[in-house]
Amino acid sequence: MQDFVYYTPTEVVFGRESEERIVPLLKKYGAGKVLIHYGGGSAVRSGLIPKIKAMLDSAGIPWAELGGVVPNPHLSLVYEGIELCKREGVDFILAVGGGSVIDSAKGIAYGICYAGDVWDFFDGKAVPAASAPVGVVLTIPASGSEMSDSCVLTNTEKGQKRGCNSNFCRCRFAVMNPERTFTLPPYQTACGVTDIMMHSMERYFTPDSPMAITDALCEALIRDVRITGERLMSDPENYELRASIMWAGSLAHNGLTGCGARFDFGTHRLEHELSTLFGVAHGAGLAALWCHWAEYVMPVNPERFRNFAVRVMDVPDGPAAAQQGIEAMRAFYRRIGMPVSIPELIGRKATEEEISILADRCSRGGTFAVGNFKVLHREEMLDIYHKANE
Amino acid sequence: MQDFVYYTPTEVVFGRESEERIVPLLKKYGAGKVLIHYGGGSAVRSGLIPKIKAMLDSAGIPWAELGGVVPNPHLSLVYEGIELCKREGVDFILAVGGGSVIDSAKGIAYGICYAGDVWDFFDGKAVPAASAPVGVVLTIPASGSEMSDSCVLTNTEKGQKRGCNSNFCRCRFAVMNPERTFTLPPYQTACGVTDIMMHSMERYFTPDSPMAITDALCEALIRDVRITGERLMSDPENYELRASIMWAGSLAHNGLTGCGARFDFGTHRLEHELSTLFGVAHGAGLAALWCHWAEYVMPVNPERFRNFAVRVMDVPDGPAAAQQGIEAMRAFYRRIGMPVSIPELIGRKATEEEISILADRCSRGGTFAVGNFKVLHREEMLDIYHKANE
Repeated sequence: MQDFVYYTPTEVVFGRESEERIVPLLKKYGAGKVLIHYGGGSAVRSGLIPKIKAMLDSAGIPWAELGGVVPNPHLSLVYEGIELCKREGVDFILAVGGGSVIDSAKGIAYGICYAGDVWDFFDGKAVPAASAPVGVVLTIPASGSEMSDSCVLTNTEKGQKRGCNSNFCRCRFAVMNPERTFTLPPYQTACGVTDIMMHSMERYFTPDSPMAITDALCEALIRDVRITGERLMSDPENYELRASIMWAGSLAHNGLTGCGARFDFGTHRLEHELSTLFGVAHGAGLAALWCHWAEYVMPVNPERFRNFAVRVMDVPDGPAAAQQGIEAMRAFYRRIGMPVSIPELIGRKATEEEISILADRCSRGGTFAVGNFKVLHREEMLDIYHKANE
Repeated sequence: MQDFVYYTPTEVVFGRESEERIVPLLKKYGAGKVLIHYGGGSAVRSGLIPKIKAMLDSAGIPWAELGGVVPNPHLSLVYEGIELCKREGVDFILAVGGGSVIDSAKGIAYGICYAGDVWDFFDGKAVPAASAPVGVVLTIPASGSEMSDSCVLTNTEKGQKRGCNSNFCRCRFAVMNPERTFTLPPYQTACGVTDIMMHSMERYFTPDSPMAITDALCEALIRDVRITGERLMSDPENYELRASIMWAGSLAHNGLTGCGARFDFGTHRLEHELSTLFGVAHGAGLAALWCHWAEYVMPVNPERFRNFAVRVMDVPDGPAAAQQGIEAMRAFYRRIGMPVSIPELIGRKATEEEISILADRCSRGGTFAVGNFKVLHREEMLDIYHKANE
C-alpha cells in the first residue's frame, strides 16, 4: 500500500431542511459578496434560484449572478465569471447545480486568485496556490465535485477537456436536499449512477495492494450504488433511494474509497475525449467504454476482476467469474438504459478519422499515457476505442 | 432517515513517512507555541517524543511539555495543562499518543478558550463556543478521537466519566504511522479492535431506517475490522493489517457510518461506569457488556440483529440468525482474548452495592436515560448489569 493524505474539509448539510442553512453557512465561511452561479433554466424555473436570491437579500448579503453553464463546462464562461467577480468585488462563489456548475465555479474561484491565465492550471503550465471559497447547493448527484479536489473544464477553442486537482478547490460547504433530484429524467439519473460507481471503480482497479478497509468500503459503495441505483430507476421519487445515491456520489469521489492505493482513471481520460468530440453525457460515455477497457486490461490482474465480480457484482465464484463480472456490468448498464458501445452512444459507428482524433487528443499527440492498473499509450487507446466501436 | 451534518475537516497524513510532516503541518495550522502532550514513558522510550522535540527545535518552534496522561484521562491533569498553557503562552496542543492523550489535549484546548471551569462542558452547564487548535500524532488506534467530535474526561473527585461533543474539538491534523503500533501488546490491540467495531455498532443499532449507503458502509467497516483484527492477533507486525485497523479506527467514529441515523451509544454509557469504578480498559469493558445489552434490546427490532448477523458476522440466514449473530460476536471476543462478562473483566463478581453504584451513576441518580435503539432507564441498566454479572 501507499502512504496517503486524506482531507475532506467540506461541511455537508444534508436533508429536506438543508436549504434553510445557506445564509448561516455563507456567513460562517466569510462571504462578503456572492456570485450565484448556475446552469440552464431549470434551477430558475424550480424556484431555487429565486429562493436563494430572496434569502440573500433578506440577510443583506450582496450578490451577482452568472447562469448559462453547459454540460462539459466551457472555459469561456469561466473567463466571463472571473471578469465579473473582479469587476463586482465578488469574494465567494455559490454553485447551484451539478458537477458542471461546480467545476465552472471552481475555475472562476481559481482565476480570481491568479494573475495569469487560469487555463495554465489545466494545461500543466502552473500549479494552483490559492482559490476563492466555493459553496455548493447540489441538485444533480454524479460528479462528486462537491467534496472532491477535482475540476474539469473544456476549452472549446482547442478541443481540449482537461482536469486540475488540488485541495484548494475543496468546497467550504455543500447543501444537499434529495428532494431537488426527484425530477431528474431517467437518462440523467442513470448517467449519474454510472459516474458515481465509476469514481470508485477507478480507485478499485489499482496496481497496488490496498488496505483491507479500503477494499471493503470501496466494494460496499459500488455494490450499494448498483443495487440502489437500479431500484431508483423504477421508483424515482423515493426519498431514501434518492438520498442514498446523492450521498454516495460525494463519498465515491472524495478520496475515501482509494486511501492507500493509486487510482487508475484511464476510463475517465478515454471518455473525456468522447464527450468533447461528440458532446455526449459523461456518464453515458463511461458506460460505453468501461466493459471494453475492462476486457482489455483484465489479463494484468485477473484476480482483481474476480474479486470485483464476486464481491461487487454478486457473481458466483469460479474460474470464469472475472469475465462474468464484466458481463454482469454490461447487463446492468443495459437495464438502466446506458449505452455499452460507441455506436449505441452516438447512434452510428465512429469513423476511423474520429477514432484517430480521440486517441491523438487523449495521448496529446502520442506524448501522454493514461491509467495505472495498465498504463495506456496511444496504440492501446486506439485498441480500446476500436473495440468499443464494434 | 434523519437530516444530518457531516463535517470531518481533519487533515490525515498516513504512512511510514508521515512523521516528517509534523513541522509543516504545525506551521500550516498556525502554531505559535506548542504544548507536547503525552502519556507514560513509552512515547519517550520509543524515541518519538525526543524526535518531535528535536524537529520543533530545528524549525524554531517553541514548545512546552506535559506528560502523565493516564487511561480514562483525568480532569486534574487537564486543569494543570490549562494553567501551563496560559502561563507559557501556548496556542497549539500536539497530542502524542492514543485516545486518552487526545481527549486530555482537547480538554486543555477547550479550557484555554473559556473563562469558566472547563468541566462545565461535561456537566451540561455550558456549551463550547471555541477551542484552541489540536494536532495529533497517533500511536494507539481505538478511540477515533483523532477525527471525532468527542472528548471524554474523568472527574476522579466526583467519580464521573463524562463526554462532550462539538465540532470545535475536531483535530486540525492527524499524523498516523502504523509502524508505531507494532509494539502494542495483544490485550491492548484487542481492546482497540473492540472499541473501533463498537463505535460503528453504536451507530448501526438505531431506531431509524438508515440510508442504504450508510448501512452498506457501516456493515462493511465492522465486518472488515472483525476479520482484519483477528488476523492481526497472530501477525502483529504486519504493516498492512496494522494500517487497516488504524485507518478503520478513524473512520468508525468520524460520523461516516451513522449518516442519517440517530446513534445508540448505550453500551458506551454503561461501560463508562465500569471503567470509572473498576479502572478497567474501555475496550474490555465494552466486550464484557455488549452481548448482554444485545440480548436485552433485541426484541425491539430483531430484524436489525438478523441483518447484523448475516451481513457482519457471516452467519447463515434463518429464523435463529439474530441470536446466532450475538453468539458469533461472543465467540469472536473470546478468540481475541476479550472478557464477555463482568466477572471475566474484573476477576470476580461485582457486589450488589457495586451494581447499584453503576446504575446510579449511569442514570445520574435515576434522572437520566441512555441509548436510542432502546431507551434505558435505571431499572433497565440494573437488568443489563445483572445479566453481565452472571
